[in-house]
Amino acid sequence: MTSEVALPQPYLLFLGDTTEPGYAKTAFGLRDWAGERCVGEYAIEGATVTTGLPHLTPEQAVASGAKAIVIGVANAGGFIPPTWWPALVRAMEAGLDVVSGMHARLRDIDVLREAAHRLGRRLIDVREPPAHLPIATGKPRTGKRLLTLGTDCALGKKYTALALTRAMRARGVDATFRATGQTGILIAGGGIPMDAVVADFAAGAAEMLSPDAAERHWDVIEGQGSLFHPAYAGVSLALLHGSQPDVIVVCHEPGRERVLGHPGYALPSIEDTIEFALRLGARTNPAIRCAGVALNTSRLDAGAATRLIAAQSARLGLPVADPMRGGAALERLVDACLS
Amino acid sequence: MTSEVALPQPYLLFLGDTTEPGYAKTAFGLRDWAGERCVGEYAIEGATVTTGLPHLTPEQAVASGAKAIVIGVANAGGFIPPTWWPALVRAMEAGLDVVSGMHARLRDIDVLREAAHRLGRRLIDVREPPAHLPIATGKPRTGKRLLTLGTDCALGKKYTALALTRAMRARGVDATFRATGQTGILIAGGGIPMDAVVADFAAGAAEMLSPDAAERHWDVIEGQGSLFHPAYAGVSLALLHGSQPDVIVVCHEPGRERVLGHPGYALPSIEDTIEFALRLGARTNPAIRCAGVALNTSRLDAGAATRLIAAQSARLGLPVADPMRGGAALERLVDACLS
Repeated sequence: MTSEVALPQPYLLFLGDTTEPGYAKTAFGLRDWAGERCVGEYAIEGATVTTGLPHLTPEQAVASGAKAIVIGVANAGGFIPPTWWPALVRAMEAGLDVVSGMHARLRDIDVLREAAHRLGRRLIDVREPPAHLPIATGKPRTGKRLLTLGTDCALGKKYTALALTRAMRARGVDATFRATGQTGILIAGGGIPMDAVVADFAAGAAEMLSPDAAERHWDVIEGQGSLFHPAYAGVSLALLHGSQPDVIVVCHEPGRERVLGHPGYALPSIEDTIEFALRLGARTNPAIRCAGVALNTSRLDAGAATRLIAAQSARLGLPVADPMRGGAALERLVDACLS
Repeated sequence: MTSEVALPQPYLLFLGDTTEPGYAKTAFGLRDWAGERCVGEYAIEGATVTTGLPHLTPEQAVASGAKAIVIGVANAGGFIPPTWWPALVRAMEAGLDVVSGMHARLRDIDVLREAAHRLGRRLIDVREPPAHLPIATGKPRTGKRLLTLGTDCALGKKYTALALTRAMRARGVDATFRATGQTGILIAGGGIPMDAVVADFAAGAAEMLSPDAAERHWDVIEGQGSLFHPAYAGVSLALLHGSQPDVIVVCHEPGRERVLGHPGYALPSIEDTIEFALRLGARTNPAIRCAGVALNTSRLDAGAATRLIAAQSARLGLPVADPMRGGAALERLVDACLS
C-alpha cells in the first residue's frame, strides 16, 4: 500500500479555542483509539475542552517524540479560523508536520503554506485520496476481510470496526483496522477517504486498501454510507465489491427510523440490509457471510441495552452486540466473525 | 442544468491521419446521431478514413457555421500526437474552439494551450465533470425518465438510449437524450461524465443531469457499467438511484459470456439484471418498471437476429429489440416504454 496516506506519528492533539465538547469528537476518538500514539494535547486561549491527556507545548511535544500536530476539533463551517494559525505555525517551527481532516485545505491558507515551505514541514489533508488509484480487478486476494455495513450513515460503522479489531487483537489474532473516512484515517495513521475518490476508481481504491495478506490475517474495514442511501449507495457498493469481505457485520442504531438528512426515506431493516449485502457482495466473494449485528445503544441505559441486544439476537438468530459496551455479547460476535 | 458541460456546435469533425476505421468510432457516432450538427470533416495527410461528410478546411467550416472542431478519432494510447497539433492550431486560428473526449487533456499540450490563449479560443475536455456537483437529495422530480442498464460495459447502452430517444421523437414525444459518457456528451452537446465524478457526488450528478421537467417529457439516460461489474457497479448504482427512472431497458450482447476485461467474472443473466435493477431502483422510485430488453445483434445476420429477438421475447415475456435494426420490434419496445 505504498500509495495510501501514511501519517507522521505520534501526534500532538490540537484543540484550538474550543468550548463545545461536541466539536472535539476527533480528539476524543484519537485519545480512545490511538491513545498510545498521542503524546498530549495543545490548546490556545479560551479553550475549555480537554481530552485529559498531558498539556504540552509544541516544543515539549517534540521532546516527547511527536511528529505531527493533528487538528482534533471542528467548527460549524469546517474551516480553520485565523485565531488558530499562529499556534499551527508555532508547531511547525517546533518541528511538527500539520495534519487535518477538515474540509478546508491547509495549503489554501497562505500563512500555513508559507511557513511549511520555509520550515520544510508537511501540510497533510487526509480528505485527499492518493493520486494514482487503480481500476478494480476483482481478483481474489489472500488473507481474511471483514467489512462493517450500516443501515445508514453515522451510526457506528467506524467504532464497530475499531472495537472488533481491538477484540481480535486481544485474542492474539493478527488484525488491522482499515480506515475509509477522515477520522478513521487519523486514528489508523493511514487509509483512503472513499468519499473523495473518483467513482470509476472507488472499487479499485477498496482493493488497494486491503491488499494480499497472510492467510490468518484479518483486515477489518470501516464501512461507508449504506446500500440503501439515496446519495451514497454507490460508494457503499464499490466498497463492498472492492473489499471482497469474507464476513460482514451490519451496524444499526435502534430507534432511528429515517435516513439522516433524508427524512423522505425510511431506514431499511436489518434483515434487508443483510440480504442485499450478501447478494451483492457474493459477486466478488461467493463465500461472504454475515457474522452478526452491531447495535449503537449509546442512547440507552445499560439494562435497556442488554435487554434490547438479547431480544434482537433472538429475533434475528444472529450474534448481536454493542461493541462499545463489550462484554459477553461482543465476544460472541467476535467468535462468529472468526469461526 | 447551468453547471453541466455545454458544447459549442455545430462541429467540424477531425479525423487526424487515421487509417483504421475502428479508431474513428466517435466520428461515425457523431455523423449518425448528430449529423445535423456536423458541417463536415477535416483530415491531415495520410488519412484514409472518411465519414462521408463534406471535406472542409477549418476556414470553410467556419463559413458554414461551425463553432468547434471535435477530435473524432482515438489512437491506441488515448493521446493527441504532435502530428495533429498544427491542424488543431489552424482550426483555432480560423475561429474554432477545440473539443476532445480523449484521456489526454488538451490544455496539457503547450502549443495548444498557448494558441488558445493567444486566439481567445476554448479547449474543452469532456471528460472533466462540472466543478460544483450537489449531494443527491433523493427527492422525486417531475417528468418521466428512462435509464438503459447493461449486463456489462460496452454493449449498446448509449446507442439504445439514442435510438429510443429518436423513436420517441418520431412519435411526437418530447424526449431528451441525457449523456453520461464522453461520446454521448459529444453527440448530445452536453452531459456529465459519470466515471469522472467524485464518488460522494455521483448520485447527485445523476439528479442534476435529469432535472424537473414537464409531466409528459422523457429524459432518456445513457447507462454506465453494470450493477454486477466488479469495478464499476458503484457508478451504475449511483446512476440508477440518482436517475430515479420510471422505466429501465436492459441491454445485452448475445454470446457475451464473461465480463469485458474481467475474464474471471461470468456475465449476469438478463433476468438477474432486471431483478436487481428493479429492487435497487425502487429505493428512489417505487414505480420503477422494466419495459423490455435491447439486444446488440451486430454480429448476427438479419435473419438470425430476428429469430433470436423473437425467441428471447418469448422466453422473457417482455418486448425485445435491437434498437439499431429498428422495425416492429423496436416499436413494441417503445410502446412498452411509454405505456
